[in-house]
Amino acid sequence: VTGGPISFLSDYGLDDEFVGIVHRVLAAHAPGVPVVDITHGVAAHDVRAGALTLWRAAPWLGPGVVLAVVDPGVGGPRRGVAVEVAAASVVLVGPDNGLLLPAALALGGATRAVELAADPIPGRGATFAGRDVFAPACARVATGADLLDLGRPVDPDTLEGDPVPAATVGRDGVRGEVLWVDRFGNAQLSARPADADHLGPSLVLRSGGRQWPAARAAAYAELAPDQVGLVTDSYGLLAVSLNGAPAADRLGLARGATVWIVAGPDRSGL
Amino acid sequence: VTGGPISFLSDYGLDDEFVGIVHRVLAAHAPGVPVVDITHGVAAHDVRAGALTLWRAAPWLGPGVVLAVVDPGVGGPRRGVAVEVAAASVVLVGPDNGLLLPAALALGGATRAVELAADPIPGRGATFAGRDVFAPACARVATGADLLDLGRPVDPDTLEGDPVPAATVGRDGVRGEVLWVDRFGNAQLSARPADADHLGPSLVLRSGGRQWPAARAAAYAELAPDQVGLVTDSYGLLAVSLNGAPAADRLGLARGATVWIVAGPDRSGL
Amino acid sequence: VTGGPISFLSDYGLDDEFVGIVHRVLAAHAPGVPVVDITHGVAAHDVRAGALTLWRAAPWLGPGVVLAVVDPGVGGPRRGVAVEVAAASVVLVGPDNGLLLPAALALGGATRAVELAADPIPGRGATFAGRDVFAPACARVATGADLLDLGRPVDPDTLEGDPVPAATVGRDGVRGEVLWVDRFGNAQLSARPADADHLGPSLVLRSGGRQWPAARAAAYAELAPDQVGLVTDSYGLLAVSLNGAPAADRLGLARGATVWIVAGPDRSGL
Repeated sequence: VTGGPISFLSDYGLDDEFVGIVHRVLAAHAPGVPVVDITHGVAAHDVRAGALTLWRAAPWLGPGVVLAVVDPGVGGPRRGVAVEVAAASVVLVGPDNGLLLPAALALGGATRAVELAADPIPGRGATFAGRDVFAPACARVATGADLLDLGRPVDPDTLEGDPVPAATVGRDGVRGEVLWVDRFGNAQLSARPADADHLGPSLVLRSGGRQWPAARAAAYAELAPDQVGLVTDSYGLLAVSLNGAPAADRLGLARGATVWIVAGPDRSGL
Repeated sequence: VTGGPISFLSDYGLDDEFVGIVHRVLAAHAPGVPVVDITHGVAAHDVRAGALTLWRAAPWLGPGVVLAVVDPGVGGPRRGVAVEVAAASVVLVGPDNGLLLPAALALGGATRAVELAADPIPGRGATFAGRDVFAPACARVATGADLLDLGRPVDPDTLEGDPVPAATVGRDGVRGEVLWVDRFGNAQLSARPADADHLGPSLVLRSGGRQWPAARAAAYAELAPDQVGLVTDSYGLLAVSLNGAPAADRLGLARGATVWIVAGPDRSGL
Repeated sequence: VTGGPISFLSDYGLDDEFVGIVHRVLAAHAPGVPVVDITHGVAAHDVRAGALTLWRAAPWLGPGVVLAVVDPGVGGPRRGVAVEVAAASVVLVGPDNGLLLPAALALGGATRAVELAADPIPGRGATFAGRDVFAPACARVATGADLLDLGRPVDPDTLEGDPVPAATVGRDGVRGEVLWVDRFGNAQLSARPADADHLGPSLVLRSGGRQWPAARAAAYAELAPDQVGLVTDSYGLLAVSLNGAPAADRLGLARGATVWIVAGPDRSGL
């Protein structure tokens, strides 16, 4: 992999100096290589949330290097890895704890991987691998090192993690999961628009013992006030939305919730 | 317009990957062009707050391209536009919903404008115009395209939006509006220092049925503890401030509140 | 000092446009010089928190220029300064209110200092020295100006501020202070690992009338659920930590709290 910026995602937040120090390490080891912050607002230690964020961003990350750190097991037995996805000209660097796998799969699947050495640094603890292990490895890749220069080869099929689930599509309905609630309160489902096409335009959503009539829509602006919409979102998935209001809050939909989409009562109203 | 960075303002927040993906799109389409984040902390869907933020920042945005997105009507009938302000060597790109107008006026007034085409992208929804429409347009301007290459010309006088209101100045007092409450709790008013000069140094502020004695000051440090100050702020407007404490919180002043400045009781104290 | 990026720390937060405008000023006055945001999440007006953040980041700031602004006295009698630390090829720029001193000491001690002129800008108040005084000074240093070109020399020994306290080490225990609580709830102490080596591996922590058995650990992952650890952190200090949970919240440890580390009851359990 050559060329492309370093994209950086973490759960470090922006209130401490963690992100800034990593940027300084990258600037020192890979001067002139642009660094793009994807987000550092992943909830602390929420590996799955980080994995899904990276998975959504994946189509925009290549060519380039990806530094991803949500790492509650830092300093422990979990491996640090660099994972090449040749099809996308991407190398993902971070802990092997499930954070990287969904993005690697979305980009075409890991072609090579190495385990990064994590030698102790005299006088400092082992709790900041982003600074001491992953950022230097990213800088080496970004400045032309081959993956095999970074560590011991490991079988890409041994990488940890679960893929992003697909919805279950049946004749009478679609069973999906809330993958993400965004800043605006849209609840992204694991269902794709085509999954629900056979159910017609008038739908009912069910979750947690409650249900709402819902309409397919191409934009929030098509929805009447308080009308629940199933909008095709910018990642090509269905999202539960309201026009100008946070749907997830209003309907009580949290990440991981099961949502059923079923056919509505055929224009008779609810 | 040539030269200058791309300045980027939005209500995307920093907890999702929206800002990072837009940066990656800009890096891909306009490699080497610096991108400066003005803020992404505009309250979700608060077009007026975004317009005022952009208006305050305007004197520092030229020469360059401005990517501004607070866009509750995304995908709907509102136009996407690129607006040239020749006097400042600035092109503003974003939704035509009032977000861009105050900054365009502050910089000298729109000289040309085009409506951006928003062609659907196969497999993705139309809910992320910042990524799919506005960022590519900014990249084209930043890499030398003429405004007319970006879309259909529209009359700059048809741009949506309200200018920033001025204070009403009378012999006995000044009637202004709280335009902004900053992180430190200063309440910026729509009044300029000269608006209140005829009232003398000893003043009274009135808002929402309450009133406080107030002093003109050049710096917060000039104010005694709990003394309410009218400080000339860094944008050249009067702000209601306390020394080391958040005035807006303490006095209950929110954005949009009406504030009267009147002459005080001539050194007799209140 | 030549070369190196400008590192930027402040209490401006990211919700207003302050940080973005300063970046635009730097881009205009020092085009092409990279700017790295260390953090802008220092609590508003908390000079000591900013000083400690800068002190922690110090080893990664050179060579380069540091723009640091936590400045409740802006516009008042406090000096604005530029401070050279020759040993680290660093120039620190900001208010002389204690913010810069700990970092300057950590990097080797101030070798030269100047007081920056703060000429009024027509039509604007004096409340945004980061934009109007400090950023232009940083840009001049970053583009090759000598320190003495920036202002009137002052004695580096007159710089304001308190050094970071060390722990008090006694035969029976170590008395330290909570310097910082990070995003993950680790409570960094002013004690170094060697300070507590004579106390053995089984320890007791005492603070605020409460006490907890505690174990030395090299990584959070070594700690059992709910076991309090004293982990050597990434800055080489001891931190009070739990595995996967915020120790400071759980134990009620806030910045500034006194913590005693004493020998535990020799494997007999508490």
